[in-house]
Amino acid sequence: MSQVKEDLYQNGLQRQYSGKAEAAAFLLGGIGTGNVSIGSRGDFRDWEIFNHPGKGATLPNTYFSIFAQAEGEEPVVKVLESKLNPPYTRAHGYPPGTAAGLPRMEKSTLRGEYPFVSVQFEDKDLPVDVKLEAFTPFVPLNPDDSGIPGAYITYKVTNTTSVPVKVSIAGSIINPIGATFDQIGNLQIQKCSQNSNLFKQESELSGLILQSTKFEETEREYGNIALTTTNPHTTYKRAWLRGAWFDHLHEFWDDFSENGMLTDLQYDTPANDEATDTGTLGVYETVLPGETKEMNFMLTWYFPNRLNGWSEWIKVKEEGRELIKNYYTNHFDSAWAVAQYLVNNKERLTKKSQSFQQALFNSSLPYYVIDAIASNITVLRSTTCFWLKDGRFLGYEGCQDDWGCCDGNCTHVWNYAQTLAFLFPTLEQNMRETEFLEETTDDGKMNFRAMQMFDSQWMFGSNPAEAAADGQMGTIMRVYREWKLTGDDEFLRRVWPAMKNSLKYALLQWDTDDDLVFDGKQHNTYDIEFYGPNPLTGVFFLGALRAAEEIAKYLGEEETANIYRTVFEKSAKRLEELTWNGEYYIQQLDDVDQYKYQHGMGCLSDQLLGQQLAHLFGLGYLLPEEHVKKAVYSIYKYNFKEDFSKHANPQRTYVLNDEKGLLLCSWPNGGRPKLPFVYSDEVWTGIEYHVATHLIYEGFIEEGLTIVKAVRDRHDGIRRNPWNEVECGHHYARSMSSWGVLIALSGFEFDMTRNEIKFNPRINQDDFTTFWSTGKAWGTYTQKKNINGEWDTAVKVLYGDAAGITVHACGKKWTIE
Amino acid sequence: MSQVKEDLYQNGLQRQYSGKAEAAAFLLGGIGTGNVSIGSRGDFRDWEIFNHPGKGATLPNTYFSIFAQAEGEEPVVKVLESKLNPPYTRAHGYPPGTAAGLPRMEKSTLRGEYPFVSVQFEDKDLPVDVKLEAFTPFVPLNPDDSGIPGAYITYKVTNTTSVPVKVSIAGSIINPIGATFDQIGNLQIQKCSQNSNLFKQESELSGLILQSTKFEETEREYGNIALTTTNPHTTYKRAWLRGAWFDHLHEFWDDFSENGMLTDLQYDTPANDEATDTGTLGVYETVLPGETKEMNFMLTWYFPNRLNGWSEWIKVKEEGRELIKNYYTNHFDSAWAVAQYLVNNKERLTKKSQSFQQALFNSSLPYYVIDAIASNITVLRSTTCFWLKDGRFLGYEGCQDDWGCCDGNCTHVWNYAQTLAFLFPTLEQNMRETEFLEETTDDGKMNFRAMQMFDSQWMFGSNPAEAAADGQMGTIMRVYREWKLTGDDEFLRRVWPAMKNSLKYALLQWDTDDDLVFDGKQHNTYDIEFYGPNPLTGVFFLGALRAAEEIAKYLGEEETANIYRTVFEKSAKRLEELTWNGEYYIQQLDDVDQYKYQHGMGCLSDQLLGQQLAHLFGLGYLLPEEHVKKAVYSIYKYNFKEDFSKHANPQRTYVLNDEKGLLLCSWPNGGRPKLPFVYSDEVWTGIEYHVATHLIYEGFIEEGLTIVKAVRDRHDGIRRNPWNEVECGHHYARSMSSWGVLIALSGFEFDMTRNEIKFNPRINQDDFTTFWSTGKAWGTYTQKKNINGEWDTAVKVLYGDAAGITVHACGKKWTIE
Repeated sequence: MSQVKEDLYQNGLQRQYSGKAEAAAFLLGGIGTGNVSIGSRGDFRDWEIFNHPGKGATLPNTYFSIFAQAEGEEPVVKVLESKLNPPYTRAHGYPPGTAAGLPRMEKSTLRGEYPFVSVQFEDKDLPVDVKLEAFTPFVPLNPDDSGIPGAYITYKVTNTTSVPVKVSIAGSIINPIGATFDQIGNLQIQKCSQNSNLFKQESELSGLILQSTKFEETEREYGNIALTTTNPHTTYKRAWLRGAWFDHLHEFWDDFSENGMLTDLQYDTPANDEATDTGTLGVYETVLPGETKEMNFMLTWYFPNRLNGWSEWIKVKEEGRELIKNYYTNHFDSAWAVAQYLVNNKERLTKKSQSFQQALFNSSLPYYVIDAIASNITVLRSTTCFWLKDGRFLGYEGCQDDWGCCDGNCTHVWNYAQTLAFLFPTLEQNMRETEFLEETTDDGKMNFRAMQMFDSQWMFGSNPAEAAADGQMGTIMRVYREWKLTGDDEFLRRVWPAMKNSLKYALLQWDTDDDLVFDGKQHNTYDIEFYGPNPLTGVFFLGALRAAEEIAKYLGEEETANIYRTVFEKSAKRLEELTWNGEYYIQQLDDVDQYKYQHGMGCLSDQLLGQQLAHLFGLGYLLPEEHVKKAVYSIYKYNFKEDFSKHANPQRTYVLNDEKGLLLCSWPNGGRPKLPFVYSDEVWTGIEYHVATHLIYEGFIEEGLTIVKAVRDRHDGIRRNPWNEVECGHHYARSMSSWGVLIALSGFEFDMTRNEIKFNPRINQDDFTTFWSTGKAWGTYTQKKNINGEWDTAVKVLYGDAAGITVHACGKKWTIE
Repeated sequence: MSQVKEDLYQNGLQRQYSGKAEAAAFLLGGIGTGNVSIGSRGDFRDWEIFNHPGKGATLPNTYFSIFAQAEGEEPVVKVLESKLNPPYTRAHGYPPGTAAGLPRMEKSTLRGEYPFVSVQFEDKDLPVDVKLEAFTPFVPLNPDDSGIPGAYITYKVTNTTSVPVKVSIAGSIINPIGATFDQIGNLQIQKCSQNSNLFKQESELSGLILQSTKFEETEREYGNIALTTTNPHTTYKRAWLRGAWFDHLHEFWDDFSENGMLTDLQYDTPANDEATDTGTLGVYETVLPGETKEMNFMLTWYFPNRLNGWSEWIKVKEEGRELIKNYYTNHFDSAWAVAQYLVNNKERLTKKSQSFQQALFNSSLPYYVIDAIASNITVLRSTTCFWLKDGRFLGYEGCQDDWGCCDGNCTHVWNYAQTLAFLFPTLEQNMRETEFLEETTDDGKMNFRAMQMFDSQWMFGSNPAEAAADGQMGTIMRVYREWKLTGDDEFLRRVWPAMKNSLKYALLQWDTDDDLVFDGKQHNTYDIEFYGPNPLTGVFFLGALRAAEEIAKYLGEEETANIYRTVFEKSAKRLEELTWNGEYYIQQLDDVDQYKYQHGMGCLSDQLLGQQLAHLFGLGYLLPEEHVKKAVYSIYKYNFKEDFSKHANPQRTYVLNDEKGLLLCSWPNGGRPKLPFVYSDEVWTGIEYHVATHLIYEGFIEEGLTIVKAVRDRHDGIRRNPWNEVECGHHYARSMSSWGVLIALSGFEFDMTRNEIKFNPRINQDDFTTFWSTGKAWGTYTQKKNINGEWDTAVKVLYGDAAGITVHACGKKWTIE
């Protein structure tokens, strides 16, 4: 095996990111809460806690600082961020709000194993070693405890000298209530009014509450932020000097630098209108030689009211209903209450979060595969998703810098995503219910962007948009997944009638010549329409039929099942005849330029997406295994490029220069349309992962791993954020297809309707551990070949109730007690 | 001499900037015309031709491309830019307008010797070597020929193979008429209407004219752009495909890639409203092995109408007078006419521009000194300055990204600037006339921001702003400079009465205790007021008195001269008594915290600014030479920092981390105010250069050079743009103090009232060449010690009429014929 190939199987350490890797930003924040990110310099960036995205949104004056004085020495005072990186090209230098002129740490190294992040600082001037650790609780199958609007932020300080060191760590934060951000993320405080910061202490919790008395609880601007601590020795300044010019920072820095203690300036009125205050909470300790002390902070927020809609254009317009509350308001009524919950449940939330992190990161998968799987969890905890008070879970496709981008749980994009279904199946079920119970008409047309909940509908011009063939069929397959993961018959019965209508609609709408293969005008995930028989929608139809057949059987609708079976068989046969070219499946068109934006003879990376889902969900082969294998290998052969320097792509560019990636399409046998379908020259991580997953299923392990590694190599913190795979927006939902790689590599099968799970790992079989999850429980599975050549196997349940589940692995079978 | 010190004297090659040095952007464009910059990747960026700054303003689809096909080989087609640099973190990848997905050049290297720039491309795929050369004519003493709205852009193509190569080079540019830019510089075309591109040919000139028939010639949006060539073999596409999605780029790239020829799509109507067209002009040649061919392009523009004011708030409000025309409209009526002028005068404009560039860059000054002197010429050809049809020359302090920043020929900022005065003295005289003839009241108060020309006045709240003590006194000194540089008595007589009033006002306003030293409330360049005796304004007053004394004598006003002499002597003596602390000059205040923002015992870098100007202008010592020497050395000793890592600056940050720079102030003997004057912790290049100049005058050559080198080392293309020194805005006027370093190093003295110039170089005396200029002529001066130990000297006049000027140098004296 070559070195390159061997590397592919490495279960090594996760990457780390120096302070120069400024693209790296690790998201804190829960499901439906918004986020703040920790950058590789240890900086708090991208403030997205205000119910909309905020890439680049900065809060001035907002950072932690350290005062450290070794006995008998001068104090050293620094901002707890490593040095700013070039370029330094602002029109007016760095303003004081950036603290760019203050001394800061020499170096930093960020490490992230979701949901945990750490930043190790280095600085030769300081008499202490400082490490930042932070996380927002994350417990699969427990969305509520994974949806807390806040984070634990701990600074661990170790005395590296031989004398006692007096240490203060002070967190400063500007009060942003009522403020907005401009296009480049600068805070605009013109609408701030009556902002004030309180200091509060209540049993072991103390800290600052940032609030405004201007806004009513029912206003969108209403909210508060708490910066709190459980450390006993605190010092604080509720508001920096309200002066002219740079007085505020002068006074704060001189005050803190003197002895690490803060003087409260005793303002007894709120800040002026069009102004706001910055507050600082400090914690101090004497640290003995060799000793490590923890400075425990919590940052929590409470912005209950969000726009009752997808956007200003697509929202509830009825007066008094323009706003809607976040789910987290079911549990909390203030940022302080969130902090109290974090304090009261710290041990449990920490342990459960660690269980998950360890189960995933200590598994036998290659390090970059774990990275791909774990990093895209962030999508469901990013502003791409939101979660309403009534339990409704919603997702954009991704995010603009400042607003969600492409509305409506888009069926054809979310088709690819697996992460949410495997970790929080109840939320994924909620999406299916929205689709089938609200967005599917009686004649079976499913709006591929869900908007009824906001009294709206997705339009193309002045008409309701057409259905999306791939999205509509994929959604049927995904009901099958949700059902098999949870065994939730009630859920299944609720959506089943609409599913049947949906299949009826599909045949009427898209099979215009009654050969049971789609050939009409087929809108799809490329935002255009395919015409004629083609593998993307054709295979999806087969997958939907198989899923429906199984469900019909289960529900005792034998006749229906038989019809689906018959249609499936005919359709599959016909699709083969029409689209198999000996190497892969093509679109059948007499003249590829008859319509704009077709693929024709092109080798489409998505041609077997439906088949990949069928594998993941346990539906087996939809087309002849031999052809499927050949086709998926052809995709790799023709579409994976080792270097993009010579690739001419007039579309959007996600991969460039000497990077590697998988094209959406190529034309190895010619026949490229004059204007091939939009996106054909692009590279999407969501497609790369599902092709990788599929390659692994078909036995092309190295090819699959090669693709995964290429994706993650591109997200190296210098070029792109490892925790943000972009397509049409940040944290793009499609990237959650990466979870499929875990399922394929572990050979995990699940059927909660029969209480069965199976493992059949495809790599490192002799000593293999993996994370697994169903709607009932999650944990680890381990198999090892012992010295007698026999298999030692173990399933560990780390959360939930798996009692009665039968495990099949290594030719054995046992039931969890 | 140590290596470090030896390096300081190096007359080496200018720096060059790889494509990774993305901060580097070389400005094309003339005086008062706006600019477009060439970036280090060979990209055209920062479109500032629309009568306002545009840092970051991008024109989509706007780049040159090359098609090159060696006989018998496949063609190679690339964008003529080197590769894009990370990060690649946009929310939606790169849109097609960036052409990020097209193949481009492997590497590039930018070199700039103002006004000439070149970009050498490297690419192993191409059968030719390609170099871009560009410049906008620049001829000191000829502002009109230095104020042409356009540039020559030449691609030199050398065949590096052994077979003929067919080469096309095509320049594409979007028609931006009527468009605007958003905050991040993206073009917004919602207001575009009736845009169309014409192809025109007229004798040897042919090319595209980008225009709109929507706007009247009197509207602010009115204007046109021409991309032209004098090469005979042209091909063009007036408009890219007007399609959906990415059709435009698909069609253009496929068309050009096929054979290097362009197909015009024959649209016979303008673009739709809210849309615009991109046009492409190509030039093709067959290049034989070893042969080099030039593809000569010109980019010219004509946007005649600008806001009749400094800003939307400070402008002429009378209906019908809201707009005013640019100076260049005196010579041109269209971008096509500009191109014609460039064609018709190419040889002359090129030669004169080269004369200047060679005179400056082939001089004996250290390479980084030349760099500092030459690079800041860009200020007067940037959007910091503008030039109106009536000849009025105006300057902001600098520029925001999208608008001028700080209005009004600000006297206290322009105090430091030398470049304009020495290269275009008539424009500098115009500024003095504005100040004295329009902005000085009868009682002698000078508004330090000129706004009368726009029917406005600079206010602090609801009152006219106070005068600036440093600005008002410096302006008097600068009249002296303008007069001595030009010998223009008429100019002198015009402004002289107001100058006398100004001095009267100064004594009444700022000397409250009649000891002839300023001690009142003294507004100054730090945007705050000093109180009490202080060196900044005190020395400026001395300089103004000396200048006035000399002028009065010259004009035969002996009595006035005597009064100024007497006041000078008493004031100087008293200032010494009040402010000399044995090491440097301090501010005399009983309680430094009595007023906010003082410097007190601090060592102010600007304490001898007036003295520096006195040296530059030939006014001699204003204070005891010994103290001046000691003080200027103290400034270096206390304020120059080799490393800013530990410097705590709560103000704006221009220098950071391990960079070197000169602080505005420090408190070596304690006494730092609680809130020291704003800007005290900052570093401004304009001050660094004047202190460097002064150090050189006082014999501290190495210290002066060390400062200059520190500034330029910070502007390395990675961290900052070498052609843009920022303070409160881009291209900050104060940075033009760098020209003083040339005057000091060459020991240049000038007195056109007596037709005398003198040289007394302070470095490399044995073999020394320098550029020199007065209001009458410019050229070079050379001195060499020959083998007999005697001086060979030569003055070369390269422009203007120097006949009759007497030269003093090397103990010799001769008259130019």
